[in-house]
This record gives sequence, C-alpha cells and structure tokens, in this order.
Amino acid sequence: MAERRVYMNGRLVPESEAAVSIYDSALMFGDMVFEMTRSFNGEHFKLREHLERLYAGLRILRIPLETTIDEMTGAVHRTVEANREAFAPDDEHRVMIDVTRGLLGIYHGVVGADPGPNLIIADFPLRWTVRGMGELFETGINAAIPSQRAIPARLLDPKIKNRSRLHYLMANIQVSDRRGENNWALLLDPDGYVAEGTGDNFFIVKDGAVLTPGGRNVLRGISRAYVLDELCPQLGLSCAERNLEPYDVYCADEAFMTGTPFCLLPVTGLEGLPIGDGRPGPVTRRLLAQWSENVGVDIPAQIQVWNDADADLGDAPSPYAFRRR
Amino acid sequence: MAERRVYMNGRLVPESEAAVSIYDSALMFGDMVFEMTRSFNGEHFKLREHLERLYAGLRILRIPLETTIDEMTGAVHRTVEANREAFAPDDEHRVMIDVTRGLLGIYHGVVGADPGPNLIIADFPLRWTVRGMGELFETGINAAIPSQRAIPARLLDPKIKNRSRLHYLMANIQVSDRRGENNWALLLDPDGYVAEGTGDNFFIVKDGAVLTPGGRNVLRGISRAYVLDELCPQLGLSCAERNLEPYDVYCADEAFMTGTPFCLLPVTGLEGLPIGDGRPGPVTRRLLAQWSENVGVDIPAQIQVWNDADADLGDAPSPYAFRRR
Amino acid sequence: MAERRVYMNGRLVPESEAAVSIYDSALMFGDMVFEMTRSFNGEHFKLREHLERLYAGLRILRIPLETTIDEMTGAVHRTVEANREAFAPDDEHRVMIDVTRGLLGIYHGVVGADPGPNLIIADFPLRWTVRGMGELFETGINAAIPSQRAIPARLLDPKIKNRSRLHYLMANIQVSDRRGENNWALLLDPDGYVAEGTGDNFFIVKDGAVLTPGGRNVLRGISRAYVLDELCPQLGLSCAERNLEPYDVYCADEAFMTGTPFCLLPVTGLEGLPIGDGRPGPVTRRLLAQWSENVGVDIPAQIQVWNDADADLGDAPSPYAFRRR
Amino acid sequence: MAERRVYMNGRLVPESEAAVSIYDSALMFGDMVFEMTRSFNGEHFKLREHLERLYAGLRILRIPLETTIDEMTGAVHRTVEANREAFAPDDEHRVMIDVTRGLLGIYHGVVGADPGPNLIIADFPLRWTVRGMGELFETGINAAIPSQRAIPARLLDPKIKNRSRLHYLMANIQVSDRRGENNWALLLDPDGYVAEGTGDNFFIVKDGAVLTPGGRNVLRGISRAYVLDELCPQLGLSCAERNLEPYDVYCADEAFMTGTPFCLLPVTGLEGLPIGDGRPGPVTRRLLAQWSENVGVDIPAQIQVWNDADADLGDAPSPYAFRRR
Amino acid sequence: MAERRVYMNGRLVPESEAAVSIYDSALMFGDMVFEMTRSFNGEHFKLREHLERLYAGLRILRIPLETTIDEMTGAVHRTVEANREAFAPDDEHRVMIDVTRGLLGIYHGVVGADPGPNLIIADFPLRWTVRGMGELFETGINAAIPSQRAIPARLLDPKIKNRSRLHYLMANIQVSDRRGENNWALLLDPDGYVAEGTGDNFFIVKDGAVLTPGGRNVLRGISRAYVLDELCPQLGLSCAERNLEPYDVYCADEAFMTGTPFCLLPVTGLEGLPIGDGRPGPVTRRLLAQWSENVGVDIPAQIQVWNDADADLGDAPSPYAFRRR
Amino acid sequence: MAERRVYMNGRLVPESEAAVSIYDSALMFGDMVFEMTRSFNGEHFKLREHLERLYAGLRILRIPLETTIDEMTGAVHRTVEANREAFAPDDEHRVMIDVTRGLLGIYHGVVGADPGPNLIIADFPLRWTVRGMGELFETGINAAIPSQRAIPARLLDPKIKNRSRLHYLMANIQVSDRRGENNWALLLDPDGYVAEGTGDNFFIVKDGAVLTPGGRNVLRGISRAYVLDELCPQLGLSCAERNLEPYDVYCADEAFMTGTPFCLLPVTGLEGLPIGDGRPGPVTRRLLAQWSENVGVDIPAQIQVWNDADADLGDAPSPYAFRRR
Repeated sequence: MAERRVYMNGRLVPESEAAVSIYDSALMFGDMVFEMTRSFNGEHFKLREHLERLYAGLRILRIPLETTIDEMTGAVHRTVEANREAFAPDDEHRVMIDVTRGLLGIYHGVVGADPGPNLIIADFPLRWTVRGMGELFETGINAAIPSQRAIPARLLDPKIKNRSRLHYLMANIQVSDRRGENNWALLLDPDGYVAEGTGDNFFIVKDGAVLTPGGRNVLRGISRAYVLDELCPQLGLSCAERNLEPYDVYCADEAFMTGTPFCLLPVTGLEGLPIGDGRPGPVTRRLLAQWSENVGVDIPAQIQVWNDADADLGDAPSPYAFRRR
Repeated sequence: MAERRVYMNGRLVPESEAAVSIYDSALMFGDMVFEMTRSFNGEHFKLREHLERLYAGLRILRIPLETTIDEMTGAVHRTVEANREAFAPDDEHRVMIDVTRGLLGIYHGVVGADPGPNLIIADFPLRWTVRGMGELFETGINAAIPSQRAIPARLLDPKIKNRSRLHYLMANIQVSDRRGENNWALLLDPDGYVAEGTGDNFFIVKDGAVLTPGGRNVLRGISRAYVLDELCPQLGLSCAERNLEPYDVYCADEAFMTGTPFCLLPVTGLEGLPIGDGRPGPVTRRLLAQWSENVGVDIPAQIQVWNDADADLGDAPSPYAFRRR
Repeated sequence: MAERRVYMNGRLVPESEAAVSIYDSALMFGDMVFEMTRSFNGEHFKLREHLERLYAGLRILRIPLETTIDEMTGAVHRTVEANREAFAPDDEHRVMIDVTRGLLGIYHGVVGADPGPNLIIADFPLRWTVRGMGELFETGINAAIPSQRAIPARLLDPKIKNRSRLHYLMANIQVSDRRGENNWALLLDPDGYVAEGTGDNFFIVKDGAVLTPGGRNVLRGISRAYVLDELCPQLGLSCAERNLEPYDVYCADEAFMTGTPFCLLPVTGLEGLPIGDGRPGPVTRRLLAQWSENVGVDIPAQIQVWNDADADLGDAPSPYAFRRR
Repeated sequence: MAERRVYMNGRLVPESEAAVSIYDSALMFGDMVFEMTRSFNGEHFKLREHLERLYAGLRILRIPLETTIDEMTGAVHRTVEANREAFAPDDEHRVMIDVTRGLLGIYHGVVGADPGPNLIIADFPLRWTVRGMGELFETGINAAIPSQRAIPARLLDPKIKNRSRLHYLMANIQVSDRRGENNWALLLDPDGYVAEGTGDNFFIVKDGAVLTPGGRNVLRGISRAYVLDELCPQLGLSCAERNLEPYDVYCADEAFMTGTPFCLLPVTGLEGLPIGDGRPGPVTRRLLAQWSENVGVDIPAQIQVWNDADADLGDAPSPYAFRRR
Repeated sequence: MAERRVYMNGRLVPESEAAVSIYDSALMFGDMVFEMTRSFNGEHFKLREHLERLYAGLRILRIPLETTIDEMTGAVHRTVEANREAFAPDDEHRVMIDVTRGLLGIYHGVVGADPGPNLIIADFPLRWTVRGMGELFETGINAAIPSQRAIPARLLDPKIKNRSRLHYLMANIQVSDRRGENNWALLLDPDGYVAEGTGDNFFIVKDGAVLTPGGRNVLRGISRAYVLDELCPQLGLSCAERNLEPYDVYCADEAFMTGTPFCLLPVTGLEGLPIGDGRPGPVTRRLLAQWSENVGVDIPAQIQVWNDADADLGDAPSPYAFRRR
Repeated sequence: MAERRVYMNGRLVPESEAAVSIYDSALMFGDMVFEMTRSFNGEHFKLREHLERLYAGLRILRIPLETTIDEMTGAVHRTVEANREAFAPDDEHRVMIDVTRGLLGIYHGVVGADPGPNLIIADFPLRWTVRGMGELFETGINAAIPSQRAIPARLLDPKIKNRSRLHYLMANIQVSDRRGENNWALLLDPDGYVAEGTGDNFFIVKDGAVLTPGGRNVLRGISRAYVLDELCPQLGLSCAERNLEPYDVYCADEAFMTGTPFCLLPVTGLEGLPIGDGRPGPVTRRLLAQWSENVGVDIPAQIQVWNDADADLGDAPSPYAFRRR
C-alpha cells in the first residue's frame, strides 16, 4: 500500500518524516492546539465543529495562525485525498490537526526568520486507534478512579484541546495497576465531582434520563455534544448536564463513555462494582444503534471486523492507555 | 560555521532535521522529561545534578529508558565534541537533553515495532538564550503577578521537569500586557504564596538573610540549589526556604531570580513598585560576583558582550517570554 | 448655584460638613451599609428595591437603626427636595444613603451617651460619576482580570452592600497597570468563575441568551435584576444565571456590564482580545435602547451631553477607578 | 478639663469636629491604613515600629502620602503636646493615626481640586479602651471560635493594618451569643489554624515554650513582636511561630492574647473548657511582670485603678467587642 | 408491659441484651449502615425507600450481607409483631435497622469462623425520640451555625447513612453553648452553603417556593424526598433544590426542618435573628397539615399528647442533641 | 485455656459477652475514644502515654468519664491479671481501652436513669493482630495511594483517637483492588501531602535523616513519638517533622511505617515503584534492632514464631485491612 503523507504547512511529506522541531513551542510547553476527527464511510463527521473548537483554542492561546477556517477545511480534504491510495477500502479516516505556535523566539536564530505557527494535518486509519475495542461494546469497561485529580479549569482550561496533559498520563499509569480487565481511568475534579476520562466524556443513565458532567472541568467533546444535542432529542430521551459524584454512578442504571474513535462505549462497572446489572443497558444500546443508523455504519460491528483482522497486533485497550511493559 | 548536529537515539543528525514524530507521546501529552544545562568557559556546570533530576523524573513517569546515567553523560560529551566546529571561540554551550516516552501505542503500526523512548541531546550557543539580557543586570526586572496561578504539585508536580506547561505560557501572555519594561511573570500558587517564574526561581533578601520559597510548587532549580547550598555558605550568608507572600516581597530589601542561562538576575520591582531602593542590592551583587569568580567567567559581562555583538537581532527579554506580534 | 446639603440623622448640613466621626465603626471596620441610586428625569429609579436591600444588610449586621423603611423613603425625598436649587435643570440625582453603626463603644465617652447608628443621605449630580463615559457606549470597555480574587461570600458576603471592600481597590490598582484604554477590572472568584466588576455586574450574550453569574459571590445589583427580570422578558430574550468562566467570555457573542449610574455599558474585549467582533452587539444595543425608552431618557446621549460640557474636568474612567498619579 | 484636639492634615481641630468626608475613599472602601499606639508613663511605646508598619501599608496600597516618617513622628508629638491639658495626670495616651486616600476621583468636583490623602492623628485617654478589663488579668478570658473564618492573606492581607474588616465584626456578633462571661472571638483561618482575635494576637505556652501562629493570616502586632523578640529572650524563654490548631490549644499549659492597650491578657478557656488549670499560668504572669518592669508601669494595676474609678461607666469587655443592645 | 425484643441475625433477644461485640467493625470504624423509620397509626411509612437507601450504602461499602431486601422487610414485620405486647395502644413504632460488617478479621479467632455481617432490627416507642418537641411546632427552633463544618461528600459521603459521624456531635457540643432556647445545629459545608442539621434536612420558603440544598453534602432524607416529590406537588407548591447560603436564610419568608420522628418542624430563627416574622409560616403549616391528613395522624398533636404524659421525664430537645451535664 | 474476660464498668465479663448496647452513642456517631497498647515480655509499653492521649480526647469530646487516669491504670492491670490463665507463655498482651459516651439521651428510658459513659478494657493475644506479618520485615510493604483523601483536622481531628473512621475503610477497600502483594494504603491529605496509613504512621529516610509528616492530619502515634523522641536520638540519627509529598517518597532512600502491634515495618515500594533499592534499608534495620534491644524482645522474630505456629489460620495482612471475600 502507498505510504501515507502528512500536510506540513502546505507541503505533503511522507508520514515517517512528519515531525516537529525539537525547538518548537509545542515541545517546550505542551503548547499545541489540536483536533482528531473520524469518518463514517469515508465522510468526515462534524468536521466544522471540530475546527471551530480548534479556532477557539487558538484565539485564547494567542497563536497567530493566518490560515482561515475555510482554508483549513480545504487542506483537510486535500490531505485525505492525497492519501486515498494508502487506505484499504474498509478503512475509515482518522484525521489529526495540530497547530503549534512554532519555534520559540530564543531559537529563531536556528532557522533564520521566525517561521510562525505550524499547521500539521495527518490522516491515518481509524482501525489502529480502536484495536481490541470490539468486545468492549459487549463487556463494557470498568471505570477506575485514580488518585490523580483532574486539573480544574481555573488552573488550566481543558476546554482548550491542548497537549499539556501529563496528568492524563499519570492517571493512566495509576489505573494500569488495578486488578481485572478493561479498566479505564475516570478522573474526579478537586471538588470530588466526576470530570472525564483521559480522552473521553462520561455519562450515566438514571430513571430514563441521560446525564453528564457540566462542561467545566472537561473537554467539551464533539461526541458528547452529539449525544446531548442530537441523539437524545431524536430518541425522545431527557438529557442534562449535572454534577455527578461517585455515589450517583454507583446508583445509576447505566453508564457510558463517548469518544471520537469508538463513539460510545458501555461502562458496566465502577471501581469493580457493577453498575446496574453489570451489562450494557438498553438506553446505551439505543443510543449506539441510532448513532450507527444515522451515520450508516454499524459502529461496533465495523470495529469488531477490524479487530478480528488485526488480532495478531495485540490490544491497545484505551485510546490513550498507559501500558506497563 | 559548521552546521550543528543533534544526538538522536545514538545518531548525530543535522539540527534542522532534529525533530520529534507527530505521533510521539511528548506531542500528545507534554510527556517529556528534559534538562537544559550551560557551560562556563566550555566546562559543563552541574551536569551530574541535572542528570539526576532527569532520572528522578523518568522513574516517576515510568519512562523505561534503558540508557544509564553514565552512558548519558558520555553521550552529552560526545555531542558537544561533535559540534566543536559549530561554535565561536567565545561561545558557551547550552545543552538540551530531552527524553520522550516515544510513539503512543496506538501508532506503533506506523513504524512497525515499538521503538521505545527517545533520547535527544542538542547543543547550541548560550548567547541566543540571553539575548538582550545584559542590561538587566543593571536595571533589574519587574516581577509581575499574573492572574494565572501555578498548578500545585498535588495536581501536576513541577519538580518533575516536564513539558506539560501551558500555564507558564498563559502567565507570559498575561504579563505581556503590562505597561513598562522588563516585566517577567512571577506566579503565585493557589494558597497565595510566591511560587516561581516561568522558568526561574525567586529569592528575596531581608535583613541579610537570603530566602526562597520551599521546594514544593516549584521546579527545584539547579541554580537555586547552588545559591542555597554553596554560594550563601561560601559568603557566610544565612539562607533558608520560607513561604513568601507578596507582602514579604514588597517589604524585602532585595530580590533576584535564578536560572541556568543567566545564573542570577536582580529583581528591582514588584508590580511596578520598587523593591528596596529599586536598584540591584549589595547581597545580589555579591552573590553574582562570587558566582562569576567561582566559575572563572564574568557572567554579566560575557552576556553584555554577546548582546552588543548581536544587537541587530533584537531582544528575547525572558528566556520563555511570550511576545505579542 | 446653591450649596448642596446632606441629611445627617434628621438635620440638613452643608455638604462640605457632611462627615463621619473618626471614631465611628464605619471607619474602624468598614462597618457601613449603603445604597446609591439614580434618577431618570428626576424620578427615583427602583428606590424601594434599593432600600429593601439596605434593610436586609442592616438586619444581618445587627445595626439597630430605628428608622423605618417608609421614614427613610420620606427622608430621601426631603433631602432631594432641599437640594432642588443646587442642581442644574438637566441634572439627574445620585442619592447616597449610608447607615453606620455609630461610635464604637470604647469611644462613647467622647461624646457622652451612645448616640446609636447614623443615617446619612446625600444627593449630588449624577454627571460627576459618569465623567468620560459617554464614548464607552460606542467603544466598549476591556475587561481585565486582575490577580486579586473576589472574596467569596463564605468569608464576607458581598450581597450585603458594605464598605469593607479594600480588595476592590487592589483590583483597580492592578488593572491600572495594563496597556491600552478603558480597562475595567473583572474579578474571578477563588473557583475561577467570573464574579463581578468593582462596582458593576457582568453579563454575556451567547446564542441569543443573556447570561450572568449567579447571585452568590457578587452584589446582586438592582440594575442586574432589572435586566434579568424586566428588560429581557420585555424583549422576549432568554436570560439566566449561570456559572461563567473566562472561556465562556472569550467565546461569547457580546458582553456588557450593568451599574446604577451608567445602566449598561458594552464590554468589547477580555484581556485585550475582542469579544465577538469587538464592537457593541445587537442585544446589548436593544437592551440599552429599551431601557432608555422605559425611563424616558436616552441614557447614552444624556451622559455624552454632560461629558461634552464637562470635558475640561478630565475623565474618571470607571466609577470606582484607581488612578495612578 | 480642656477639650481634646485632633490633628487633621496639619491643623488641630476640636475632637468633636474630627471627621472624614462622606465621600472619602476610607468610607467607600474601608480604604484606610492606621495605627494605634499607647504610652507608658506618658512615653510612647514602639512608635517607630508602628509607623514603619503604617508606611509599609501605604506603599502597598499606593496611597501617595507625601509626609515623611520623620515628619509624621513630629506631628504625633505635636498632637500629644497640644492635648496635655486634656489629660488627667494618671492618664496614658492612646494615639490613633489614620491615613486615608482622600476623596474618590468622582467626588473631586465636590471640593474643587483633588486634596490628596488625609492624615489624622488623635490622642485620647487609654483608660477608655480598657474599661472593665482589670479583672480579666485574674479571671482570664474564654476564647470562643466563631463560625466566621479569618479572611486569608491571599484575598485581603491582614498584615496591612486596614479598615476593611467587617468580618471581625461578624465574628464579634457571633461570639456575643455565647453563654458565660468574658468571651472573646478567636478566629480560625480557612485551613483550620488559629489566626488571631479581632484586634489581638494569640499565644500558647506548652512545655515551657511560647508559641504563636506565624505572621501570615494575622496582623503582625507590635505587642506580639515585643513578646517574641524581646520579652521571651530576656526571660530565657524559648519562643517560636508555629501553626496552631484548636487541639493544640486544648492541650496547652497556658494561653494569652496580646494587644496594644492591655499588653497581655491571660486566656484561661477555649470554647468553655479550661486551658491548663483554668487560671493564668506562671509563664503568662512572668511575661506580664517583666513587661511591667521594663516600662515602669504595673500594667494590670494601672488598668484596675482606672476601672475602679470609672466603674459607673460600665464595661467594654473587648476593645472591639460587639454588644447586643 | 412486656419487655421489648430485638432481632439479632434471626434471633429475637431481650432489648437489654441487644448489643454489638466490642470487636465489631462498627465499633472500630463507625462502619455501619443503618435506617430509622417510623409508623403512623402503626403503619410503616416509606419502609421500602428506607431499605433501598440502606442497600445502596451496603453496596458502596462492600458489606456482603446476604439477606435480600424482601427478607429484610419480612424481618422488620416479624420484629414489630413480636413486640406488640410491649407497646401502648397510642404508641407509634420507631424501627432501627443496623447492618455492621461484623468482626474485624484480626478478631476472628475470638469466636471461631468469620460470622459475617450483623443485621439488627430494634423497635421502640417513637415517643422517646420526640420528648419535649410538642411545643416546638408552635415556637419553632433557632438554627445555630457552629464553627464545625459538614464533612463534604468528597471526603466521606453523607448520602451513605453511616455511623461515622463524630462531627455531628462536635456541632451539637458547640451549639449547646448558645444563649436562648431551642437551638439546633445547622451545618455549613466548606463552601459556605447550608448543608443539613445533625439528623435533619433544612428547607426555606421564599416567594412561595420551597427550596432545599441539593442532595450532595447531606443525607438525602426520606422525609425530605416526601416534601419535594409528594407534598409540594400535591399542594401545588413550587419546590427545587438550590444552593442556600446564610444570606438566603436571613432573607427567607419561612424555614423548616424535616426528620423522620417529627416529620417537619418550623425554624423561626437563624443565629438568633427571626426568620420572616419569627413565627411558623403559612406554607410550613400547610405542609404539616397535609402530611397529617395524608397519614391520618395529627402529627403535632400526637407528639404533644405524649409530651404531656411524659412531662416528668424531661426534654431531649433535639433527637441527636448533646446535653451539657 | 481459660476464657478471657473483659472489664466492663468495673465488672469482668466473659469476652463473648463483651458488647455495647445498640443504643450507645458509640454506635450512633462513632463517638468513642480508645487506645490499644501492647506489651513486651508481658510488660506494658508506654501505657501512660496512651492513657494521656485518651484523656485529651475525652476532654475535647466532653465525655464526662469520672474515672481518673490512675484508677484506669489500675483497672488495666487488674484486667490483665485476671486473664493470666488465658494467655500462652509466649503471648504478648494487646490491651484495648474503649470509652463511650453511653446511651443517647433519647434512649435513657430503655434502661432507666442515664448510666453515663462506659469504660471497657479488653486484653487479648497480640499474635492475632500480627498474623502473616512476619515476612513483611524482609519483603517490606508497598504503599498504595488510594483516591480517598485523609479527612483533614479542620473537619474531624484525627489526633483524637476516635472510631468515626469510615474513610479508613474506604481507603482499604480501594487498595484491595491493586495488583501485587502487601499493598497497604497510604493516604494523602487534601493538600496532597502524605498523611498516614489506616492505622499507622509513615516515615522516610533521606540522606541519613529520618522524616515524618507533622502531627496535623494524622494520629500522633505513640510508636511515632518513640521513634522521633527516643530511638533516633539514641542512635544519633537526625529526625524531624516535615511535609512530605509523593515526590519525596519516590526520591527517598528508605521508608517505613510504625504501629503499636508490629512497631516498625519497612516500606519498600510506593505505587509499585521500588523505594531505594527496593529492600529494607540500613536505617530502618538499625531502628528496629535498637527497639528490639531496648524492650528485650526480638520484634520480628517473635512475630515470625507466632506466624509459623498459626500458619493454618491464614493472613490478616494489615491490622486494619479490608479483605475481599
């Protein structure tokens, strides 16, 4: 298959050469805003929403990117187009858009004049990100609460999708130490409220209502918004933002997590105790089924097919998981 | 002059090619431990202490680097040696050592097997980092307290010298908005205690005693330790770690910041009010003079010489400064 | 023009003699409850609401004022009446009502028996308070977030309109240091939520809805209540109390502040970044226009007329601004 | 006896006319720095230390008083001199020095040009302040912990002796509700550490050591410093700043409070439980005796004499007490 | 009258022998989940709701009780039946259900094999719990805010009805020190919001709406739920969960507390200040009257009858009151 | 062997009958103060210190026990004497002293007049408490940081050795979920500092100094005091109280925990990472050896002998461990 190419400030370079200078602010400060999207049947999903969130972050961080949102949309399409040969027919696209501030001022001497921000667009098969996840649609995952707390927005705003997130990794390290299978980290904020996973948003279902933490100490996920603003209304489900504590999760009927690559995964346990009857619940199933129908892809089945095909590659149980070696 | 080369996992590559894959954990999470050292007359200063701090960070973050500390020392020397031709006779070396966890598991497919952590060693002229700082030894800097608070160690430990530091940049953005010259950010922690600058440690002098915040919500700088453990005892100065509030700084006799590239800079104002008489104080001057004597380099003079030579390049007023365009 | 007179415990004294004993609890503890109202075409606006808030504060602080709310209403009218000659025809009234606990017990010997609380009612031209503000209705103000945080209600309740507010002044001092024009302080509370200005309430407009912080760590302004409870319903605008973070303000379509003297001023920037397109927005304009219509006064025009007439007096850019000399 | 006169910006006015304009920033914001001293045998005690603390506050609050510290010392002496006839032979002087920022900018029109800060110096008999306290040297006081917490320095710095202290009054209101006699408020800070009384500093004695809370969330009293830096060393007593919790006070051998008017009062109970054996302890007595000897005045006896003479005036049990009517 | 018997793990034992081993985890850690119900005319009220709350606590605390909820219901009925002879005709039943984890592992040697959790069901006359409360329906109680704060749910979840509640007792101790009658503790949480009493939930009535703190840092009382979910809708009263501060209570029209034994008691004062006109308000009275009607018992009258009959026994003014001896 | 008997308010009852009424305040609120001591060669160790701590708790909780400390000492000795026949020759005594407030007032009717507090003294073989611990002196334990935080002293003072400690149990539940062996919970306080285990105190050794958290948010253990005040001075080791963070523990040379039954156990890991070289360190060994010598008992060997003899009973790996069934 053809080698993939990555958009780097207007040029398409081989993926293995897509790299960021060691003097870039992104590597110095975690100073990068990014987005990661996916396709369904090759169609980008909510690309505009992703890009608007990206531009909000760029403004607040004062990254002076001159590319407009429409130009960037064009660049995404161009990149995907350029990689057509590098994808299998049943692949979906996972597009990663990174914007860095560029070289720190003190290193401008390294390359001459200040080259300004970097815009990087990569496109690779979604199947990698969801390795081993197929079965999780049936077993569900166990949410494990690490000692690490979410950094609250008053100190570092998670609503800006940035790369300064070492605390996510600490949470994953801590959770890797738990007995049992399929443990994913669920962070509490310093007030003891459920915040988010390390790359996913959390929901419960209680007495028929779909509830998720308010958009404060969390990334406001595009999938999260899709559930709240489109899927639940479509299905006539009541849904709301609500402060959630572990007590609420223990007493919930169902729970699930949302994330771009896998869309929606059942959470069937909290700290090893079953939620509800310990199996994916009916509301969770309805939401996933409706999502699949809306996008014309059987989401779990597609992932299971890839998993079966890639079984020899081993699992990557959470998209951001830390794995002990 | 010859092009500089950078050590990348055992190979020396041209500096302009020294880059980190866009799929590296360092770019995904700010997941990198690093050190930056300097030389005096070409001799590395406190290299061992820097490396020991680096290895403490690697252990706590569970980055499974297999290189030993002695091997790394060798690699540093080898890198400097390889760049000898690329430095002017009066240059000093600024060595940057980065260790990243490597490619995230979900991208291992990109390059085949998991290549493991990356060790990067770069060596470039110190003069870049201290551009425009020569005069600050006389004028001093004004410490400006931004609205942004230091992230406390209970949420993300700054004692691990990591790259997940977007909040430093937010502090610099906020301070760039102040009237007057030579404003450097001085962060308070959430308890209202002085923490640190965005890349430097803070000291006051009061009634002859040298005081600095305890090593909790700060990076424990190597220069900070040199002042506390070597310079002050050598000069018979009392010194101690102490909680400091803005009130203490307003009432101080002198203040200064320490950082590897410039060693020690006077702080002559806080929020625009002069500290003491608003000029570099006698204890500050003695410390800097003794440091210069100990290392055989007139520290401010050397920087001033470089600044004069590079005057056409413009300033980079703080090593980590945000600059409005 | 006639000299103004001030109501002091039942007597009308010349304004230049209206003063509070140096032994009064108000000067010892900031122990005073007060209100400041304004008129439109000489008619008091929301006087009853102001007085009810005053009496709530008196009760909670256990200030044993014996004057009833109706008697106080009468005293206000009497004071205004007595000053009729001292106002220009186009003036509006700014009435200040102060109640202090009176002399501290330890000073009762100074004047004999305990004279009890003081009731002071002053009436002066509103035009002073709004000097230089006329143009702000077009340019808008830039909200600047100081390092100083709002004191939360659990420590000192801002809903009691008291005079123990040195922290407002600290916020104004800090903001006086910002580059650019028309910076007004916007305080965050310790949780990082937007609280209020130093004498005004803050609103944003997002997707057509008018939002303002809940009435917890803020003074619950009478103008704020007028927007929430009367103007928005009158215009069919959705409005609500909501926790707001800087992120929400950066992403808002419009923003404004309310305060008794100026009613409603556009906020067109936050920390120097434009909000929306950086100009007063349509909802802001509609609210101000409706308010003007309701009270029969073109609010911005009236202020502009005064400003033009008083141009030689210089500006007082915020009603409570700190000005560097 | 002659009427007392008060120094007001260079003029001496009758005490009954010593008042602050209702438009002064002091009355608007609690924006005043002040000191209150006392004499022993007519000699000012620690006047220089009081004035230095005053000037620190003025600087930090940016109150642009032009009077120098030496000029102010002269003004104090002049004021006391002018009141000589108004004091009984056995009276001591209580001097109050107030500095206000002056009229708010928006009221400058009231009196013409900006008159700048106000300096007020009053001198009155100390006996008023210590009414009814004579017996407390034998019975001791009961420290009562109110629900109100000290405002921590990160929000409003108590080390600046300012007048924005309504929370002190709330504490006194709360404590006035307790059963039993001689209840004085003892505030905890939000971390649960003992801070201070509402106008006095707190100490315990444990195993022979004299301990007091560190100078953070407290006014750093001049009497406090006298105990720490002079009396304890003179008596060979170990003394230190230490975080103190209620537990430490319950387990203490002795406790006392210090304040300028009464110097040092035993605290014999906490929340109604006796401390030690419930009587003034030997270290407390030694400190008070030594203090009396150092200043040539039997401190408790002098107060008791005044109390006996003024018995018909009733008590003012704490210098800052709230009294229910 | 016959002696009462208590259900202990399937056996009925005389009440005087109903005791828990000194080695039980309940005595070691406060490790017990419990419920206390009451009857109306001998009919259990909301027994199912109580038991469901009990089982939620058992799950979260991982107490491996094997008894099902239906079996437990049977045991309750059996216990009540067994005690029929021990109750007067006009008595109501107060049933207490305790579940302990059982002997700590280290004491298993004491009694042989691990006997597992203990289930204890006691039934005693409700009249004991409400001694002296009859008059409170007319006078109301005064809510007194102690210095002790509620332990927030992030540290110890009060929604699990457990016995680890020494802080309730500390609150009661503190409040026992207040002047006046009928003081009941009302705890604030660390954020300064009203939480709950030490065994009861708190409500205010404001502008016709019934408001109570959200179910976070409080026990979610069954009586509380009855008011929110049944009584208010039945009476057409608006009701909601809302953050309440002391300010809101001071400004409320009415207030009341709910608790299982007394159902609903008026709160007519806060910290000694009257709420509303200081008498039980009309909404409070309507709620209590409707409750009485719904259950077929005149709730206050029944208690008053018992109180009159038991007048010689003295009062127990709060069900959980601390009484100074 | 003879059955053990327990002292209950002056009577000696069979251990199987030693129980607390279900209506006791201890079971209602966790309202009990207690101590647990041990002997060496049958001699009580630090009995006086334990009892003094007990009496401090009784005072603060206002439990009106009339027994004096000397009478209680006598009762302890009497109880041990009475059980002589029930102990094996090589047994040591574990004495548990419980004081409860007694029946709640509302249950006084149950048994007639108020019987007042209960004093319970039990004596049982220490070997039960240390089952399976013998090998830990060689392997060390792994300190695991749970999500549960220590309740800080400002909310519930752990220095009062009380039974309201459900949060200890939650910590143990959370830690029971970790992979690997010998995990003991180590709680952080809400500031992120190391507090204590769930029944033991924590120490590190760094550069030869022995360091332990200050006595604030911890029980101030008698064994802890023995190490600080006696063993370290005896061995010439520097020791101090110090705020410790996980970072400090990761960088420590050695670590250990102290507790009455086992005295001192090595901690060889934190969160699965080895501390030092992952084996008990030399300072730890010296302390334990000296302790053994001082008390005339080889502490680890004695425990190992018991463990070997009781091997068939299974382990109780931590004295307060939660064990999943």
